Parts: sequence; structure tokens; C-alpha cells
Amino acid sequence: MYSVEVEGNKWKEECGVYGVYSRSAEADVSGMTYLGLYALQHRGQESAGIAITDGAWMDVTRGMGLVNEVFRHQVPHMDNQYIAIGHVRYSTTGSSMLANTQPLMVNYSGGKISLAHNGNLTNATEIRRELEETGTIFQTTIDSEVFVNLIARSRKATVEEKISESLNKIEGAYCLTIMTENKLIGARDPQGFRPLCLGKIGDDTWILSSESCGLDVVGAEFVRDIEPGEMVVIDDDGVKSYKFAEPKLNMCVFEYIYFARPDSVLDGLSVHEARFEMGRVLARETNYKADIVISVPDSGNTAASGYAYESGIPYVEGLVKNRYIGRTFIQPTQKKRDTAVKLKLNAISSAVQGKSVVMIDDSIVRGTTSGKIVRMLRNAGAREIHMCISSPPIVYPCYYGIDTSVRKELIAATKSVEEICEYIGADSLHFLSLDGLKHCMRKLGPDHMCYACFDGGYPIEQKSASPAEHDKYVFEQRKK
Amino acid sequence: MYSVEVEGNKWKEECGVYGVYSRSAEADVSGMTYLGLYALQHRGQESAGIAITDGAWMDVTRGMGLVNEVFRHQVPHMDNQYIAIGHVRYSTTGSSMLANTQPLMVNYSGGKISLAHNGNLTNATEIRRELEETGTIFQTTIDSEVFVNLIARSRKATVEEKISESLNKIEGAYCLTIMTENKLIGARDPQGFRPLCLGKIGDDTWILSSESCGLDVVGAEFVRDIEPGEMVVIDDDGVKSYKFAEPKLNMCVFEYIYFARPDSVLDGLSVHEARFEMGRVLARETNYKADIVISVPDSGNTAASGYAYESGIPYVEGLVKNRYIGRTFIQPTQKKRDTAVKLKLNAISSAVQGKSVVMIDDSIVRGTTSGKIVRMLRNAGAREIHMCISSPPIVYPCYYGIDTSVRKELIAATKSVEEICEYIGADSLHFLSLDGLKHCMRKLGPDHMCYACFDGGYPIEQKSASPAEHDKYVFEQRKK
Amino acid sequence: MYSVEVEGNKWKEECGVYGVYSRSAEADVSGMTYLGLYALQHRGQESAGIAITDGAWMDVTRGMGLVNEVFRHQVPHMDNQYIAIGHVRYSTTGSSMLANTQPLMVNYSGGKISLAHNGNLTNATEIRRELEETGTIFQTTIDSEVFVNLIARSRKATVEEKISESLNKIEGAYCLTIMTENKLIGARDPQGFRPLCLGKIGDDTWILSSESCGLDVVGAEFVRDIEPGEMVVIDDDGVKSYKFAEPKLNMCVFEYIYFARPDSVLDGLSVHEARFEMGRVLARETNYKADIVISVPDSGNTAASGYAYESGIPYVEGLVKNRYIGRTFIQPTQKKRDTAVKLKLNAISSAVQGKSVVMIDDSIVRGTTSGKIVRMLRNAGAREIHMCISSPPIVYPCYYGIDTSVRKELIAATKSVEEICEYIGADSLHFLSLDGLKHCMRKLGPDHMCYACFDGGYPIEQKSASPAEHDKYVFEQRKK
Amino acid sequence: MYSVEVEGNKWKEECGVYGVYSRSAEADVSGMTYLGLYALQHRGQESAGIAITDGAWMDVTRGMGLVNEVFRHQVPHMDNQYIAIGHVRYSTTGSSMLANTQPLMVNYSGGKISLAHNGNLTNATEIRRELEETGTIFQTTIDSEVFVNLIARSRKATVEEKISESLNKIEGAYCLTIMTENKLIGARDPQGFRPLCLGKIGDDTWILSSESCGLDVVGAEFVRDIEPGEMVVIDDDGVKSYKFAEPKLNMCVFEYIYFARPDSVLDGLSVHEARFEMGRVLARETNYKADIVISVPDSGNTAASGYAYESGIPYVEGLVKNRYIGRTFIQPTQKKRDTAVKLKLNAISSAVQGKSVVMIDDSIVRGTTSGKIVRMLRNAGAREIHMCISSPPIVYPCYYGIDTSVRKELIAATKSVEEICEYIGADSLHFLSLDGLKHCMRKLGPDHMCYACFDGGYPIEQKSASPAEHDKYVFEQRKK
Repeated sequence: MYSVEVEGNKWKEECGVYGVYSRSAEADVSGMTYLGLYALQHRGQESAGIAITDGAWMDVTRGMGLVNEVFRHQVPHMDNQYIAIGHVRYSTTGSSMLANTQPLMVNYSGGKISLAHNGNLTNATEIRRELEETGTIFQTTIDSEVFVNLIARSRKATVEEKISESLNKIEGAYCLTIMTENKLIGARDPQGFRPLCLGKIGDDTWILSSESCGLDVVGAEFVRDIEPGEMVVIDDDGVKSYKFAEPKLNMCVFEYIYFARPDSVLDGLSVHEARFEMGRVLARETNYKADIVISVPDSGNTAASGYAYESGIPYVEGLVKNRYIGRTFIQPTQKKRDTAVKLKLNAISSAVQGKSVVMIDDSIVRGTTSGKIVRMLRNAGAREIHMCISSPPIVYPCYYGIDTSVRKELIAATKSVEEICEYIGADSLHFLSLDGLKHCMRKLGPDHMCYACFDGGYPIEQKSASPAEHDKYVFEQRKK
Repeated sequence: MYSVEVEGNKWKEECGVYGVYSRSAEADVSGMTYLGLYALQHRGQESAGIAITDGAWMDVTRGMGLVNEVFRHQVPHMDNQYIAIGHVRYSTTGSSMLANTQPLMVNYSGGKISLAHNGNLTNATEIRRELEETGTIFQTTIDSEVFVNLIARSRKATVEEKISESLNKIEGAYCLTIMTENKLIGARDPQGFRPLCLGKIGDDTWILSSESCGLDVVGAEFVRDIEPGEMVVIDDDGVKSYKFAEPKLNMCVFEYIYFARPDSVLDGLSVHEARFEMGRVLARETNYKADIVISVPDSGNTAASGYAYESGIPYVEGLVKNRYIGRTFIQPTQKKRDTAVKLKLNAISSAVQGKSVVMIDDSIVRGTTSGKIVRMLRNAGAREIHMCISSPPIVYPCYYGIDTSVRKELIAATKSVEEICEYIGADSLHFLSLDGLKHCMRKLGPDHMCYACFDGGYPIEQKSASPAEHDKYVFEQRKK
Repeated sequence: MYSVEVEGNKWKEECGVYGVYSRSAEADVSGMTYLGLYALQHRGQESAGIAITDGAWMDVTRGMGLVNEVFRHQVPHMDNQYIAIGHVRYSTTGSSMLANTQPLMVNYSGGKISLAHNGNLTNATEIRRELEETGTIFQTTIDSEVFVNLIARSRKATVEEKISESLNKIEGAYCLTIMTENKLIGARDPQGFRPLCLGKIGDDTWILSSESCGLDVVGAEFVRDIEPGEMVVIDDDGVKSYKFAEPKLNMCVFEYIYFARPDSVLDGLSVHEARFEMGRVLARETNYKADIVISVPDSGNTAASGYAYESGIPYVEGLVKNRYIGRTFIQPTQKKRDTAVKLKLNAISSAVQGKSVVMIDDSIVRGTTSGKIVRMLRNAGAREIHMCISSPPIVYPCYYGIDTSVRKELIAATKSVEEICEYIGADSLHFLSLDGLKHCMRKLGPDHMCYACFDGGYPIEQKSASPAEHDKYVFEQRKK
Repeated sequence: MYSVEVEGNKWKEECGVYGVYSRSAEADVSGMTYLGLYALQHRGQESAGIAITDGAWMDVTRGMGLVNEVFRHQVPHMDNQYIAIGHVRYSTTGSSMLANTQPLMVNYSGGKISLAHNGNLTNATEIRRELEETGTIFQTTIDSEVFVNLIARSRKATVEEKISESLNKIEGAYCLTIMTENKLIGARDPQGFRPLCLGKIGDDTWILSSESCGLDVVGAEFVRDIEPGEMVVIDDDGVKSYKFAEPKLNMCVFEYIYFARPDSVLDGLSVHEARFEMGRVLARETNYKADIVISVPDSGNTAASGYAYESGIPYVEGLVKNRYIGRTFIQPTQKKRDTAVKLKLNAISSAVQGKSVVMIDDSIVRGTTSGKIVRMLRNAGAREIHMCISSPPIVYPCYYGIDTSVRKELIAATKSVEEICEYIGADSLHFLSLDGLKHCMRKLGPDHMCYACFDGGYPIEQKSASPAEHDKYVFEQRKK
């Protein structure tokens, strides 16, 4: 009897960050952060944490699990608390899991500082080595420890300058929420790989959130996105903006394809609208004559409705998702293939029987789950299965915060579309074209996106020869 | 800081039952039951249990929580186990919660017996009193203890006769899976209020499940529904059927409207098909000229796709459901109305802004949640909101296993449709007509359903004057 | 890696019972019961429970573990609570552990009743069979369920009469605390195998406790022991006494040798005094010329001080007991004999080196632990080891509530004193003579004790041929 | 209802450290460390941790609670593990408890290093400030983080030199076990405030332990004490010794009075022997004519037996200690003074009634518990109570690892012996004289001890004016 990971057929994004600053007597900054993390839970389900301050004392509570598991008994609270930051994380199952949760909280010469980070640095190893050579110790295996060490080492006078200087040494993807004893600071890397936005409630409550859905849940008004290369500093004087680097927007297109919640608006483009468009473009690119359009729930839903809208083919539920499956389940002794998928999804026979079906999914990583779903639909009586993917084939690894593991696991890196189609057993298979995808992003300007996993055009020059250097487990690697 | 029930705007069904009998060397009867309970989890999320036997020893493991919480560390197992039954329950939060979990396991003169029960008895109080008068003690507050006491008291020779005799004394709704040291027994009340079906794998593995989705998850083949008034006995001689009472099918129509999973087929009618039809009839009854059809996820999804199909109005996602909310969350100190609903649902502004929206939900119980959703859509910019409910107004309480609590909480029992519409703030409100609903059920015959919560036509004469007699807390009542 | 039971070289007593009745506004009856169970914790460490009533409602909380584990988060409480009973239990590690915890709480025709039981019945199987034959079911495998069924079946008018009638059908050892909605009842079997006493605080608070140390902890005054064959009923009219059977005191002598706390006084004889006397008699019986007297802590301490007092040989600490060992520990992968004993005890080399040592222990059950201790002392340099046991050899099984398991495990049942001495490796071995033991008990009268485990003189005629009938696992036995 | 700390009337020592290095195929270094920590559990009960390495990988597991709670489910293990270190800690209940557990494990330029520390540094604040000024961050509030930062900052070539250099910058009390990927290192401060010894099994297994009882539990042979100012380095070449500072032994005398286990031998003097001597000297200093000698269990036991030995007055148990009380218990609603003490201790009336009693305890800190015990004995009938303390009055705070909190809580700092005697209600009170105590330590040489808490003669000059500087909470202090 052993336990099995039920999720795991999707790319994993690293984190969600949040922050609240409020002088309002009614505001409960830790409570709002807790609600915000609930709304950002899809960005990381393995650990959660909240740090708070009252201006003198600073405290952090972190744990493994979902927000409602970590804060099962109580939400952190402090009298007169007025700043809080929070973090949810998709984490590795490693030896030192709890140590790697965030926000990080440290003492340095300037006082206490807490930091929450979403993203992946591409020169962390180099910086870490340099810092170690001058006597720095590292207690975790996360990139984020590099930030606080650089800040602590900075000779600049103010915390704003210290942070600016540090960020200029770092390459890669990062959105940060940082808390000192009297400031809430947000920063976004110059490429803007990951989203970060600012909201407010009344005149005295400011919120930073990875996605706008984190503003909605606390009833905040969207103010604006944090610009690439921008740092915002919130204190009793209000919000100040600093441009610490020249912006060159290269937002990760997978935020729109899969990661972000459909009710979020990122850099001015609605995730729902983008996905709906992907479905419409897919319909135009394929022009299948099918009886029904179905979705692989939930990530394919929006594109499926767009496909149905454009094609006129009815959109019906063909697959049911079990909402009660936890992240792992114990495999019964009876060895049964496909159990995990069967537990999570089931085909609705009465909906698909005898039908020609267009099935929409957002991406194919390894292809094994897709194959199981296709078999499930065939067993339920589907006559034809045309699979449509609302993204191009993924052929390059990601260095900026997505766990694509090794390139050889990416089915599209080693097989042609025809081979993949055969592997998963569909009657036909279509991936959204890169041009089609860019068309859906036209509101942002086609050049303001990172499409590197599709075309290898990495926005930051990859200095390192060895791919292992960018592997996120690098700091846990064994000696040879 | 206090915790809040996040779910709770829906009717609650009481239970799901399961059973496996297998002489196959490969079969893992407790593991299959565990998978089956996963598939039936929507029928009860507050406790779960599995009882197993190897023919000599019998054992039961029960606990509070979801299947993956109760069996977090291991699935019950016994060498040479060949029969197992399981149970999931929606339970009250009472003083003796754990004592009330199922399956019940007892010793009596005939040996050991375990029993899992879905439903609600209408004469349990009377039988209990009679039994107590002759010296019976009761250790739980659940109906199901009545069954085992009646069976133990029976003077009949065989366990089949004992059970038959007992069932004939009982009125109300029940589907049972019963396990002795060498038999698996299933029984369904004469009205067939709740579903129960039989499946098999190969020639030597038999399965009983509340819904057919519990067969799919273990790869079993659907054999047939258990008939109302039928008891099936499975042992090494195969399956024997006994008719212990004259059947008069009165299946609960809410199984089709809301309770059952859309991929289940109950008494020959697909739940998905029934719901899709409800959406189609709603479209014909309303004939709204709207821009989009949206659903209150997830229970409104199937009917919404049916409405879109029939009306030609595009079906789009207008509301996002947060999948990570547990059953309760801690209310932050800041008092904020609507927080629980906001956590669970959010409107997609880009989908609904400026649009005339048809919104489909399955039912309205108290109306408070519907009102919050309507406000949420208005704030997101919806121009018009036409709410369509895929069931008639609920005006009568249910005595057969649904927690409708007191009649005065049912908004439709005290308000007209116009008043409800005003209360929830929609532009218009339409409930599916009873005739329309019956049309959707035509495959089963219009008279083979219990519509009592809509029209008061209870299939069993209600003898008791006092409604408290049917209250499920009756056995926990305080003395005056 | 597997876990190991650290305790387990001693006889196990079954239970401790407690009860409080108070109309005092200051009294907190459940809180007092919680403190009382702490004081009785040595009588049972595997489960604990408290039942309370306010006169209308009755509630029970039970769990596996020590009192401070079961009530880790809160002590049960009810507004206007005025009666409470409690129970601690040494329980088997079986399949249905939680179900077997006490107090038992049931509904019957007379209302609600809770019951806590210390002891072991010798005709439970017969009564159980009779009850089953007339249709009674049993949900646990504990004797105590027999009591409540007999009470519920009684045709007598009052609860006092029902209980009296039931007790007269039962044979064996029992001390009971029983709670109805308005009475606290205590009863002790006619032989008085187990202790039970009555205490009070002021005029309106009455307490029942297995031992007088349970009175001390709540600051109560000792009133008197409950007589064998006596039932006391406490309600608003005060304390009434009923003699339900002719008393014939046969108190278990092991209560004085090992089970009870030395600060308790049972039936007028101080446990400390009795043990001190045992040490003195041992000294007179042995007359060893040794350098020091040491004790196997903690159960040998009192007798060791008595030995030192009588002999004039100095009493020093020769063995240290580790106070932090839980009931089980995980065995490291390295297989090491004696680890469990070494963890728990260590010899003090500087105290024993080169010395002739008299070592006092209370009893020898299997002899393995004694052997390990002797080796430990030898390794620490002890020159001579004279082992003195403050009880005679145990050669007969106990049927009245002590887990002596099978007779063949009792080393004294199969080996002579010389053989045991050789087995454990001591230089000499002396068991307290039965006459010597009786001398220590002279205050109670030599005939008022049960010495059956030493001489086979069972106070109740043993009808049953098969010893299995008296095995406490009998209700869990497999079919052949 | 609130919980109460049951312990807390004694000084608290900070920690126990352990380490194993073994190339033996049979050795299980983490399992041995786990057993060793069990034996050192009395030195710290609030957290525990074990770090292991196989030469390439290093891992640490830490948690709050006792050893058997932290490693409830499994002992850490790694294939081919051959070095392990462990730590038990008495910790503050602060905000960042888990973060402050040990061993600390960090990455630095030299690889991975783990460190476990017993003691208290007197110049940690100064070093910390210096380090922070050059950009070091601190993630915990424990002294021990200073060590690893100094080591990481050292420009020396070898790890031995780095550690030596670092230790020379540090003042105060420390015993360390340090693990690199291929060495086990032990170090003891030049004053040798805390004990540390070396043991071995066969030729290839070396053990470091705070006390020799940690060698006994794994069956190791005592080799020698680590010298003050000595560092030992164990690797495949065996054990090498380095003298990093001039030794000036000032062992904490309280190790002998109270902290260490009586079966340990520290720096050549048996703890049991020292305590026995204290009892003998007490007898000579007092010469009471009493009926019995009793002990406040367990810490007074050894001295009490020494007093009885010297005086010829019989030693009997006068107080019983409840072994089942956890570290905290929930205070019932009824407010009862003395409940915590009553739960833990009870007087044995039959032993003390009418007697003149000499009662031995090891120390008096605040005096409140002593007063409660005296009242308890009076209530149990003791005629006269002569209290003897096996240490002089504590009048000065400790800066080297004992939690004496503020000086004003020390009753002896503000009251004369007569006033204390009156406060606790004894008939007479005697503290062991400082000369008497020194006499007991004569084996070590009278100058080789730290008696600063009695006479203020601190072995290290206290530079800091403000006592807050030495408070262990200093790193958690709020800003003004």
C-alpha cells in the first residue's frame, strides 16, 4: 500500500505573493492576507505563510499544506498590526521542506525584514557562490535567500536603495512583496515574467497581489499593475514608485493559458478573454464538423466555450471532475492502472455516446493523462475524438519559475504532432499555432510576451552551459 | 475569530453506501470500497467508514472527515478479506459525532453483522420506543441502530428472513448494504426513494453502489438497479433476489436535480441527460433574449449547457469557483459580509460586462446566496440578470433523508416568485414548472417520482402530527 | 524500523472510576473529574473518558491515550452541569479500541444512563449469550455493556431496583460509578475485589473514587469506603445506602502490593504502610548481610525503605529511571537486545560498585526484565545481588481484572525459586512468604483478601471448564 | 479554561548535545543518536533534532516536543549514513519556536555543516552586531547562529582552523557537536561550564555526549571527558585533539546539584556520589533529631539517602510524585489554588503523621512550591518539618545557560534564611554551606567550579553594564 500523487500531469507554477498596508482601524491586515492567499491558492498548494508587523514586532507563521490547513486553528494576529505579507508555494518534496516555506523573515543591520517571492532566478547559483565566498551561510535551498543576503550586504543608506541595488544584481523572474517594520514594498523584474498588481480600499488601505482576483476577494479596487522594473514603496506617506531597471515586458504567456485564474486581469488583458479567444482561434484553425465540444475540466473550460461560440457546435459536459480528491491518495493493494485518473475524471456516457467530439485541453506535457482520457471517452462510446490544445507544443524548458523538469519528459520535444496523436489515441490532434496564440495576445502587443517554451526565444541570454545550473534542486545536489 | 461553514446553501443528502463481494484472488475488496467511497463522496462529506470480513473475523474503521482524511494513513485490510461495505455520511455536528458514524457493526445471536444505511425512516421513533419498552438500549442517535436491533430481535431462522421481517416493520427511505460473515446483502425500500445498483467484474466479483459512478471507478460493469422492495443476497452461490414488499417506485427527483453525479445512471435514466433536458425545457419556458448563458458552478453546469443548446445563446463561464476552499474557514476579525460567498465564487467581469445574462442554478433554498451572486454579477457589470432555476419552488419539507430543516427557512414557502426575485435582486426569475420537470422524467414514467417537496404529495402517509417527530435530532432532544 | 512497547513487564490492572455530584455553585464537576482521573492515571493509561449531565442533557467525551492527551484542548463542560463520572482504562490493542472506551452512555426506556466499570466479570459470556438469544445486540467487546443491557431489561420500577436486580445476576469483580440524569450511583461487588471510596467537600459535594488519592487531589475529605455488596445513591436528598448482596470481603492483595498509589488508603489500610511492612517482613525473612538496599523504581521504593528500616542496611539509589520514556518507542534499525530496558533504567555505578546489594522489586511476572536489571548491576560492578520480591510467586491466573494472560507465561508457574534465581542471574532470590504477606494485611483480617494468584483459592467458584471463557478477548474471538 | 505549566519551579538548563561517528556496518548512527537523546532528555524537553550525513548528502529533522513526540513515526535514516549529531533543548515559548530548534544546518563556501550547542554566550550580542554591520542576516534568535556565521566568515584554510578561530572570538558557555560531510567535531569552552565526554564501541564507533549516561544507553565505553578549551575531530583517521584555548575549568556546580542525571560521571566525579555527599554534609551541618528523612522527588532523592546514611534517621517516602502529568494541563474552570502542585505531588499521611520530618530538596528558586509542599505535609499530620536544601542560597543571576530570569524572582536574593523559612512555613530551614558544597566537590579541586550564582564570582568578567544584554530573549526584543 503506497500513496500516489493525484495531481501531476500539469506544469507547476511556483508561487503567489500578497501584501497589505493599512492604517484603517477596521482593517485586519493578516485576515485580508489570509483571504488573499485563498484566492491565490491555485498558484501554490504545498505551503503557505503570513508575516505581520505592528511597527515594532514582526512575526511569521508558515506551514506545509493548503491555506486552510496551515491556518486551520487560527489566523495570525497581533494588536495594532498594520502591515502583512503572504505567500503560497508549489514546493518540491525535499528533505528540508518546512525550512523552505515563505515568507522568509530575517534580522539584519537595518532591522527585521520579511520577503515573499514568486519566480525563479537564473543567476542565483553564481550570486550564491559569490556570497558564500565572502562568508555568507545559507539555511534554505530557495532562491529567495539570495535576495535578503544581498539586501543585508548592501552599503546603501536606505532600504529602498538597498533593494534597488540588490535587484540590479539579479537576473530571472521575480515578483516580490517585502515588509520592513514600517514599509510594504512590491517589486517586479524588468521582464515582468510574473504578474503583480496594486489595489486599494478607501484612502488608507493598499494591497499588492499576484493576480487581481486577490483584490476582489477583499473588496478592493484595482489601481494598476506594477510595471516591469518598478518598485513601489508604501508607507504612511502613501505609494511611491521607483524605476530600478529599464522595463522590457516579457510576461509568461502560460499565465494566460493555464496558471492564472480566469477572473483575473493581468497587465490589462483579461485571462478569461484571452482563453476564450484561444478557443475561437482553435475553432477557426480546425473547422471540425463535430457533434459536441467538451472540455477537460477545469482548465479547458474557457477555451471550450470559445470554441463552441465560434463554431456553433454545442458545448456540453463530457467529463466529470471529482472535487473531493486530495493531492494524494493511498493506492489500494490491487494494482490497477489508471486508478488516479479514473478517480479524478469520469466520462459521461449519455453525453458522448455515438458522438463526434471536439475535446479542449490547455496543454500536453507528458501525454499520459491525455491518453487515459481519450480511452475513457472511447469506452463511454464516443465515435470520434478530435483533441484541440489551446497552446502550441512545448519543446523548450522554462528557466523562469515553471517546473518543466527535464526536456526529455516533454512529449512534444521528442515526438511530432502525428506521433503524439497516435500515442494518445485520438482521431486527430491540433495545437494552437504560435501565430494564433500571439493573435490572442494582441492587446498587449505581440512582443510583450515570453514564448520561449514554444520557440526557444529566451528573453534573458542563458549564460550557463549546464542546464543543471538552472534546475531548482541545484542547491540540494549531492556531491559527486 | 470564529470559523464559518462555507458550504451550506444547499440541501444536504444523508449518505452513500457501497459493498463488494469477491472470491477473486486479485480483488482487494477494501481497496475497491475505498475507491467507491471516493466516487460517492458528494453524497456525504462528514464521515466515512469501511467494514471488512474474511469469513471469521469482522472489523470496522470509521472516522470524521472526507475519505482521504479518514483513510489518510492506510486503507483497512485483512488477509483473505472477501467482503467489504462502506459508507459516507453527511452528519450533524452533535455531541456524539463519532459514535454516529457508519457502518454500524454489532454482535447478536446470529454472529456479527455490519450495516450501512442511506435514507431516513419515518417511523423510527415509534419503533425505538417499542424496542426500549422491551429493554433495548440505544448507543447512537442514528436511525440505523433500529435496523440492527430489529434484525437481532427477529425469531426467524435465516438472516434473509430476519432482515425481510425487519424491513417490513420500517417505513421511510432506505438503501442498505449489509454484511454478515459470509454474505453481502443489499436492500432498497418499497418506494425506492434512494438509488442502489448492482455491478460486477468478471464472474466472481459483485458490487453494490448508491450510484453507477461507484461502479465506473473500479472498472465494474453495470448489471442492474436494485428494485424497490427488493433484497439481493450475494454469497458463494451467486446473487439471489428476494421481493420483501410490493414495489411502488417513488424515486426522489432531487437525485436528478442536484444530488447524484451527472455521470451516474439511476433507474435507467442518465442524470446528465435529465439535467440537460431541464435546461432545454427552461429555455422553452422562458424564451429570454439574452447575450449569454452562465451557470452557478458546478451544480448548474449541465442544465446551463442544455439551455444554451436549446436557445442558441452562447454558454460562457461567468462565475469562477475556488476549488481550494475547505468545508469551513476561519473568519478573520474584520467583519465582512459576503466573505464566504466571495471566497467561493467570483464573477468574471470580462465575460459579463454590459451583457444580458441568463444564469442557471439548480434550486433556491434560503435565497441568501443567490442574492449575493446577483450582486456580484451586477458589480462585475452585468446589464440584465435573468435567473433560471432547474426545479420548481420547494415549499414542503422532506421526511426521507434530506435536511430541509424547518419549513420556514424555505424562501419559496413564504414568498411568491415575484417576492423572491425582488429579494435576490434579479431582473427576472423563473422556476422550472412541475409539468416541465415531469416531462424531463418521462423515461421513468411521471408517476414514479417523489415530488413531495414541490406539491406535498408524500408517498407515505404521514401519521405523526408533530413535525418534530421527523426531525433527525429527535433522539438527541432534551427533556422538557 | 518498528515500535516497541516499553512498559509491559508488569501485570496490568484494568481501570479507575470516578464520580462527582455537586449542587455547589463553585463546584466544577467535570473539572474535578478530570483532576480525579489524573490522580487515578496509574490504574489505566490507554483511554480516558468523562460523562456529564445538567439534569436534562447528557454527554460523554472519550478518547485513546492519557488524560492529558484525551483532554489536550479542553475539559468537557456544560452549563449547570452537576453530575459527572469518569474512567481511565488499561485496554487491549484491538481492532475496535475507540468503541471500547468508557464511560458507556446509552438511551433506554428510563432515559439516559452512563456507566464506568473497574473489574472483570466471570459470567459475562453466559449472560451475554442469554441476552443475545432474546435479541440483544452488542456493539463493544467490553463486559460493561452487559450491565447496561441488564439494567435496561429489568422490569423493576426504580433505577435503584433495576441496578440491584442486575448486579445480583453478575459474578466477578466490579466497582461501578453510574450516572442518570439526576443521580450518581456507586456500587462494589460482594467480594469487594476492587476498592471504591466516598468523599465530600462541604455539605453539597460528593465524590466517588477508586482510591483515596482521587479525593486528595480535589481537596475532598475521606468519608468511608463503599462496602462490598453495597450500592450508594447520591441525589438531592443526600446519600442513601442499599445492601444488594451479602458482603464477603476478598480485596485483591495486589492492590496493596503494586496497583494502588502509596498515598491511598484502601478499606482502612494505608498502601504505604502495607508496603513498608512487606519490606520489613522481607528483611526479617532474609536477614542478608549486605552493604546497601536498592529498589527497582518506582514500585519497589516503599518496600525497600521498609527493608532498610528493619535491617539497618543503608537505602541508596542504585538504579535511575528515565522519566521521559513514552509508552512505546521506535526501535532503531540496529538490532540491540535490552534497548527498551536500558532506555528506562540505568545502574548507578558509583553507588553499587564493589557492593553487596539487596534489590527490592514488587513481583516477577515473566522474569526477563529482572534478568536484564541484574546484568546491568553486574556490569556496573555490583559484587553480590540478592533479589527480594515483596510478594509470593504468582502461580495461578487471575479472573478478576488483571491481565495475567496465559498461565504458561508466569515464570513461577513453571520454575522453582532456584530455577528462577538462576534464570535471572542473581546470587540469591527470595519471595515474601504468603504468611508474611498475610501478616502485613493483618489490620484487615487475614481472611478478607483474595490471594488466589498465589494459592489458587478463588473466592468465587470457577464454573467454567475452559479458561478461554474468562479471557478478556473472548468477545473478539474468531470463529473456528 | 486555560492551560497551566506544571513544571516551572526549577531552574532550566538549556540543552543536551550528542554525536556519533561510525564506519561499522552494524552501527545505526541516527538510531544511536535517537537513543542518546532519550538519555539526555532531562537536559531539554521542548524540542529535539537529529542531523545525519552519508558523506555527500546531509539532512536534519527537528521538531517541538519530547524525543518520542518529535520522532513519533520514524527515526531519521539515510543509506550509508555514518555521522549523526543530535540536540535536545529547553526553549522559550516564543513566536518563532520551530525556527529556533537545533541542530542548525547550513550551506557555506566549505560545504554543508550542522551544529548543536549547549550553553549560553556572553558576547553574542556584540558579535551579532558586528556581523550584521558587514551584511550578515540572522534567521533565528539563538546564539548558535553566531557560530556558523563566524565559521563561514573565517578565511582559514581548514574547517578545524575555521572553528578554532571562531571559538576564540566567543565568550561564555558552550559545548558543541559539529558535523561536516566527513568529520564529527566536539568542542568545549575554556571554562568547561558544561560537560561533554567521549565514548567508543569497538574500534570504529565514536560517540560524543553531554553526559556519560548517553554512552551507557548505547552500550558504549567511556573514554574520557573533553577538556576545557579542547576540540576533538573524528574522521576516518581516528580522533585528533586540538587545544584552541588555555583551559581554566569552571564547571557549573549545578550540574552536580540538579541538572545532570545521577548515573552520569562528569569530569571524573560521579553525580550520584556528589549528591550523596551533599546529603551527608547536610546531616553533619544540621544534626536534627527527627523521626524520618524524606525527599522532594525526584531531585532530592540522592541527597536524602546520604542524609539518612550519615544521620542514621530512616529514609522513607513521604511524598508521591504523579508520573503521568504532562508539561501542561488545562486548568478546570473551578479556581483552585495549589492544583498544579497537588496534581504532581501528594503527601503520604501514614508515613508522616505525628512525625518530625527532615525534608531534602535540591534548591529553592522562588519558594512558592516549597511553601505548598510544607502545607501539604502539615495537612497530612507531620509534627515538625525541617527543610534541608542541598545547595547554598542562590543570590546571583547566571549568564552561562541557566534560565534564572530576573534576580528579583530569586527569593534568596531579597530574603534572609529566617524570612524564607517563615515564608514557606517550615519549622527550620537550612541551606548547605558553600564550604560544605566545596567539600563535596573536593575530588575536582575546589577551584575548578563555577559558584557564581552563590557568591557572584563570575569566571568571565562581565563587560556589559545592562543585564538585558545577557537576557536570552535579547534578539527578540521590541524596539523602543
